Amino acid sequence: MAQDMTLLWGSGSPPCWRVMIALEEKGFAGYNQKLLSFDKMEHKSQEVLHLNPRGQLPTFKHGATIVNESYAACFYLETQFKSQGNKLVPDGVEEQALMYQRMFEGLTFYDKLTAVIFYNWYVPEEERHDSALKRNKEALIAELNLWEGYLEKLGPKSHLAGPSFTLADVTVFPTVATLFRFGLSADRYPKLGEYYALLKDRPSIKASWPPHWLENLKGQDDLKDI
Amino acid sequence: MAQDMTLLWGSGSPPCWRVMIALEEKGFAGYNQKLLSFDKMEHKSQEVLHLNPRGQLPTFKHGATIVNESYAACFYLETQFKSQGNKLVPDGVEEQALMYQRMFEGLTFYDKLTAVIFYNWYVPEEERHDSALKRNKEALIAELNLWEGYLEKLGPKSHLAGPSFTLADVTVFPTVATLFRFGLSADRYPKLGEYYALLKDRPSIKASWPPHWLENLKGQDDLKDI
Repeated sequence: MAQDMTLLWGSGSPPCWRVMIALEEKGFAGYNQKLLSFDKMEHKSQEVLHLNPRGQLPTFKHGATIVNESYAACFYLETQFKSQGNKLVPDGVEEQALMYQRMFEGLTFYDKLTAVIFYNWYVPEEERHDSALKRNKEALIAELNLWEGYLEKLGPKSHLAGPSFTLADVTVFPTVATLFRFGLSADRYPKLGEYYALLKDRPSIKASWPPHWLENLKGQDDLKDI
Repeated sequence: MAQDMTLLWGSGSPPCWRVMIALEEKGFAGYNQKLLSFDKMEHKSQEVLHLNPRGQLPTFKHGATIVNESYAACFYLETQFKSQGNKLVPDGVEEQALMYQRMFEGLTFYDKLTAVIFYNWYVPEEERHDSALKRNKEALIAELNLWEGYLEKLGPKSHLAGPSFTLADVTVFPTVATLFRFGLSADRYPKLGEYYALLKDRPSIKASWPPHWLENLKGQDDLKDI
């Protein structure tokens, strides 16, 4: 089955990483893959645009089926291959409800992260304002505190929706890892720090760790003071 | 079952409307509901914050289970009540894959819409730039053309993922209706116009039509020239 699957991806992109974790969890290690460079604008290449008119990574193909949106690919893999690999949607009603809720809050979490760390990338120089960046940082801090509270309430060694590793972890862990790569303090955000430590060596996550993070172990320090 | 469900919502909010359509489709008409006013900042009231720390609408509760994110609530309702009311996830692999893909592209579609129509609401006066609003409009036009192409390819009278009405329609129709409420030209975007006409009288949609749109039939014209 894995030989019918092809992923075009970029290193360090949380959306790409989500799909890679899902593929590993569902037992598809060995899928076809091609690492492309955002710096070289390869996500806008004909190869990508042919499969993905948005010119974005991930771009994912299974047989003739194309599912490029990272959340869509995760849902697709779990629904089509429910009984293969690890089950990523828990049975319990409460845990399932919490999984859905946290997955979609995860999109806001990711947006608030990128509004800070990619501010200069998203906003042309002549449109930048210190007041906007300050507000984005405050929004990220409020968001971090929400997630600290969620994890605190679940107790130690919990995943994001309860005892099981679920699609909430598949989709949100890459955001958490990016926070720490950009210098977030685990002293100031201890629950997120514990969650990161709990999952960073999980086989699916380790196998899909961004290669450029391994090449250069030191990350950025954009978030060290928040 | 419907008497165990409570929705706090705001009129004309596409995220609220998604959940209302899903509730109607699953046969839960008669659920408890309370219409709150964004203008009066009632989404930041204690009543909401008690259930939803983000202070956002929709806020949705089923028994003791709280699922506030609109996409999460739609998934929750469909998964928990698969055999009740209308089935919102199609069986066919291809149609299901397309449903997931369009649902998540739908979030981008909604973001691009709000970046234009709510620009002055989102961006403080001293941070506004004509160049930014112009870029947002261009991005919305590109997005509209993508969806025109998707609908063109599916052929007449199609829903967003194929022959069946699915979660893709539940989540994206409110964005399309908002486009036309804000003056989008069906001459310039005929496929979206046909799609809007196809669904606007569907019972679940009619039953949940934003009350202030009915009170004041004339919408805005912000989008008439795009």
